[in-house]
Amino acid sequence: MINSQVPAPSTAVLLAAGLGTRMRSALPKAMQPLAGQPMLSHLIVSAAEVFSRVVVVIGPGMDDVAALAAPHATVIQHDRLGTAHAALQAESFFGEGDVAVLYADNPLITPETLSRLLATRRAGTGAERTDLALLAMRPVDPARYGRVITAPDGTVGKIVEWADATEAERDVDLCNAGVLCAEAGHFREWLHRVGNANAKGEYYLTDVVAIARDEGAIVRAVEAPESELRGINSRPELAEAEAIVQARLRQNAMLAGVTLTAPETVFFSFDTLLEPDVVVQPNVVFGPGVTVRSGAEIRAFSHLEGCEVGPRALVGPYARLRPGSSLGEASHVGNFVELKATTLGAGAKANHLTYLGDSSIGAGSNVGAGTITCNYDGVFKHRTTIGENTFIGSDSILVAPVTIGDGALIAAGSVITHDVAPDALAVARGTQVNKPGWAARFRAALRAKKEQS
Amino acid sequence: MINSQVPAPSTAVLLAAGLGTRMRSALPKAMQPLAGQPMLSHLIVSAAEVFSRVVVVIGPGMDDVAALAAPHATVIQHDRLGTAHAALQAESFFGEGDVAVLYADNPLITPETLSRLLATRRAGTGAERTDLALLAMRPVDPARYGRVITAPDGTVGKIVEWADATEAERDVDLCNAGVLCAEAGHFREWLHRVGNANAKGEYYLTDVVAIARDEGAIVRAVEAPESELRGINSRPELAEAEAIVQARLRQNAMLAGVTLTAPETVFFSFDTLLEPDVVVQPNVVFGPGVTVRSGAEIRAFSHLEGCEVGPRALVGPYARLRPGSSLGEASHVGNFVELKATTLGAGAKANHLTYLGDSSIGAGSNVGAGTITCNYDGVFKHRTTIGENTFIGSDSILVAPVTIGDGALIAAGSVITHDVAPDALAVARGTQVNKPGWAARFRAALRAKKEQS
Amino acid sequence: MINSQVPAPSTAVLLAAGLGTRMRSALPKAMQPLAGQPMLSHLIVSAAEVFSRVVVVIGPGMDDVAALAAPHATVIQHDRLGTAHAALQAESFFGEGDVAVLYADNPLITPETLSRLLATRRAGTGAERTDLALLAMRPVDPARYGRVITAPDGTVGKIVEWADATEAERDVDLCNAGVLCAEAGHFREWLHRVGNANAKGEYYLTDVVAIARDEGAIVRAVEAPESELRGINSRPELAEAEAIVQARLRQNAMLAGVTLTAPETVFFSFDTLLEPDVVVQPNVVFGPGVTVRSGAEIRAFSHLEGCEVGPRALVGPYARLRPGSSLGEASHVGNFVELKATTLGAGAKANHLTYLGDSSIGAGSNVGAGTITCNYDGVFKHRTTIGENTFIGSDSILVAPVTIGDGALIAAGSVITHDVAPDALAVARGTQVNKPGWAARFRAALRAKKEQS
Repeated sequence: MINSQVPAPSTAVLLAAGLGTRMRSALPKAMQPLAGQPMLSHLIVSAAEVFSRVVVVIGPGMDDVAALAAPHATVIQHDRLGTAHAALQAESFFGEGDVAVLYADNPLITPETLSRLLATRRAGTGAERTDLALLAMRPVDPARYGRVITAPDGTVGKIVEWADATEAERDVDLCNAGVLCAEAGHFREWLHRVGNANAKGEYYLTDVVAIARDEGAIVRAVEAPESELRGINSRPELAEAEAIVQARLRQNAMLAGVTLTAPETVFFSFDTLLEPDVVVQPNVVFGPGVTVRSGAEIRAFSHLEGCEVGPRALVGPYARLRPGSSLGEASHVGNFVELKATTLGAGAKANHLTYLGDSSIGAGSNVGAGTITCNYDGVFKHRTTIGENTFIGSDSILVAPVTIGDGALIAAGSVITHDVAPDALAVARGTQVNKPGWAARFRAALRAKKEQS
Repeated sequence: MINSQVPAPSTAVLLAAGLGTRMRSALPKAMQPLAGQPMLSHLIVSAAEVFSRVVVVIGPGMDDVAALAAPHATVIQHDRLGTAHAALQAESFFGEGDVAVLYADNPLITPETLSRLLATRRAGTGAERTDLALLAMRPVDPARYGRVITAPDGTVGKIVEWADATEAERDVDLCNAGVLCAEAGHFREWLHRVGNANAKGEYYLTDVVAIARDEGAIVRAVEAPESELRGINSRPELAEAEAIVQARLRQNAMLAGVTLTAPETVFFSFDTLLEPDVVVQPNVVFGPGVTVRSGAEIRAFSHLEGCEVGPRALVGPYARLRPGSSLGEASHVGNFVELKATTLGAGAKANHLTYLGDSSIGAGSNVGAGTITCNYDGVFKHRTTIGENTFIGSDSILVAPVTIGDGALIAAGSVITHDVAPDALAVARGTQVNKPGWAARFRAALRAKKEQS
Repeated sequence: MINSQVPAPSTAVLLAAGLGTRMRSALPKAMQPLAGQPMLSHLIVSAAEVFSRVVVVIGPGMDDVAALAAPHATVIQHDRLGTAHAALQAESFFGEGDVAVLYADNPLITPETLSRLLATRRAGTGAERTDLALLAMRPVDPARYGRVITAPDGTVGKIVEWADATEAERDVDLCNAGVLCAEAGHFREWLHRVGNANAKGEYYLTDVVAIARDEGAIVRAVEAPESELRGINSRPELAEAEAIVQARLRQNAMLAGVTLTAPETVFFSFDTLLEPDVVVQPNVVFGPGVTVRSGAEIRAFSHLEGCEVGPRALVGPYARLRPGSSLGEASHVGNFVELKATTLGAGAKANHLTYLGDSSIGAGSNVGAGTITCNYDGVFKHRTTIGENTFIGSDSILVAPVTIGDGALIAAGSVITHDVAPDALAVARGTQVNKPGWAARFRAALRAKKEQS
């Protein structure tokens, strides 16, 4: 084999036609989410990192899966006749080079493992060569997995299904993960020879191993951790996979210099981006599309989606940042505050019990406790524009569309329906009237009423 | 043995007289809660599924335990003279058939295990029969448990307490869980023969095993997982038991088609009812009495008690639903919103920073951010009634008792003390006054004051 | 050896000069927090419980570490030439008695383990004596730790670094934790003999073992759990250490009579003080400086810092108590309520959506939903003083400085800018105006506008 600068072509065939009946869900199995992204997308990302081409086998009517797979090609398996049959649907994409068959419900497999699989297939010559490489694992509970029986020379002799295995074979703890990799021409030929003379009348991909061996092919197993290779067939297994993905995301964040006080309580999305020296307290949920810049601190019980948090900003506890929000440098969003499609300038603060929607708040402004933007009139949404260095008094109501000029001051408890000029004061509230002794008389009356009742 | 259609009678005697000193709590041990329900109730539910009669042995003055056990009978153990003495207090309830003795501080035992215990007692004849069946386990740390010593024929030879055991006996990892089952007549007889010639002068139920063996009875052990049989004697053990119960509830919910993204962060009550295709995000707490209908989504950091969430409703994040609340189909309750004894009609929304108490909100109504019902005058609680398709402007205050008609509109920031007719507008707020340049002068004055200070 | 009443002198040398590059943090490693307290402080507390003197070796420019260590002495290691070199910097503090060398990045070591180390050094005479005691552990993954090779008589023969170990030595699972204890004179002498003829040119403390053995010293290993002895070099290891500290704090709280329903979701600070019969629901975060008195209940999703919660008080869910807050007996702080530097009298309540800052609320007062104190004018903070048995209507705004007398009543939705006398009523809001049919016309207009757009 001659190494060249241009990587040899390779194709990953991803089987994603499964309905996932055991999930008891309306979603096709490939669309079940892990860290906020469909399982299939996780697998596509890993496969595309290693293989030069990715093709996805879907079921009929799975337009959403096809859309998700794009720009990668999809082929439809019209009849569900087994994994070998599914793989054959993608035959026209096999091309030159090597082909591997992967499963949408095995999305935790890492690029590192796929690289080892492909490298094993390609390495060696003569008796050292590998015609068919397969992935194997040693599960904590081997249960009813097929066993990988190796010959004394280390090659794979056969795969024995649990039901057909002898006691001695069942004692083998190396199990078949179902993933195969071979040169395209061989693979095509072997797949065509797979029969369906079995109880279910299906064409099983695993049969390729025996067919290849019969031809004198050399088969080798590449071992990988069970956590990468376990299938996801039920909701409890989906939850376990989610836990594995979250553990990876947390570990990566910490190694990149993020402080997680209680990593097991922080939930990431697949695309969460935290810069070094970000601090995340316990119990924080990151929805998709969040970026947090260096030095920012996300305090306990915060919930962020589709937003950017600027450097050294403070968020929470109990802050909710919704899509379209952007926090400037050293800005503060405090407890029981919700931002939606709102921009907060550098150093601006909204610290307590506030709802800011469809708004922009200038740098250095202070939004008092209980402030609310009325951005919805029942039909349309309107914007609120607040300038720099303003002081929005507590419990103010800003009825959009409305503009507050730089340096303006809104008196506490005001309902603002008209624009306020820069440096002006706006007041819109009742005048205080005190009625001496009234409270004492009121209480006496209430008490009397209670005694009567 | 002749099988008949009528199940043979059987009695479960539940020992619940313990004070639980090591809990350091004012509650009797049987009343300590697991998943919001006393330990004893968990055991009663499991026992009543398998045995035709349940009787509970309580201590003197434990009226609350007796009330909890009702309609099952209770007998009082006046002097705490040991487990055999406790079991004998229930002698008059033994009746015909089989009797098993269980413990209130072993509440995690499953009906499946109890069925196996009873079935073992009843199965077989001659040398295959079982006169006395006992539960055994293989704990991770056998520590100071009594060891179950089995004869070569598989029957139990004896129970050896740790203190009396030889090194070889201590190496046995099968441990006694203390639960016994025998035919009523035999059990009664054996119990009466138990003596108290031991260090503490107590009558131990375990001694029944040796007494039965001396009589030639055949004793067999039924093995069950440690997680079902561990005793709960301290708060750390109570917390571990809670974790086991929560894990079971989570697993059952997922198998029934509920999506739990992070099951380990969701806390159920014993009676939480979630229909298939409900989604529960991380960090949700379900208090007692909650039902969630299909397609509803409970978002992160929500807290629900005594309420019903309708189909396809959205709840949270940070929603608190208190007892007596009911959410209609496709209604929304958003962040920092509290509902108490409040009904939300189909499609109605209360999305931000709102308190609705003792209220009914008609279908299609929109309750703006910061809305508050004043349902309490310091002595009495009053109701707020809001019609269909209303628009309650942000930061409105509804002083109950008050009625808002269908299609009415409340202007933002209004204090509503009088009823509003259907389709009417109500406004109750100050008029906005702008004072040009005032804010700039105010800031200058503050700054001057600061420099002086 | 003659026992005397005066404990023999002993010195703990704490090595804290490390920068902790692998942490990727601006903080020196010794300053990384565990349960809200720097790692070094944890170690100082444990060491000072056992040793009569503590001295800390720091790096140049680590003034903050020196300040933290005070009143304990610090010495500066100007050049980082290895652990033996670091220990020697503290030579002038060795004094009489025994000296132990500990590490700032091993802060989980318990006083009990340190006592056993010191006792082992001091116990025995003749062949039973111990000249050098060291701490050892059996890690789950011994990886590349140095192995402790023991002679048939149980003494330590040598420490073999992993790289130099034979296969047989690598099979030994007893590993060196690096902590040494010896009589001051010996230790000093051995330290001076350590050379730096190794790859890195550093002076290694571990070499003291071989030097001592060469002199005929008797070396013994004291075994301790890995959880106490693992080093903390990266953020993932810091998070694991935090988990260990939290587990200890939770266990201690439960053993002291605190109910933790889901202990794994409650986060303590090093100094959290909870009295017996306190109940803590899931998902609660305790920052530094919190005391909770007997019978109080902290409900889910609460966040407390620097505050005292009185007996039988109810807090949360979703309550945030900030520094300087104090809750009286049987007071209530409910959902979405923030208190900052605020005192709540006995039986007082603030149950919903409220911000109270720099305030005092008298006993028996009821603060309505949505109440906000305006304590900040943009430059100065002002106080709000509320008397006993007042009724603050919902959505009231209290513009500080302001005083509300005992028994006063504030009408809902009022903006209070002037003091209110005892038993008086204060009202400050607009008058309600109803406009029949207006809402229907408004909706029609909006709809028309929408159709046009």
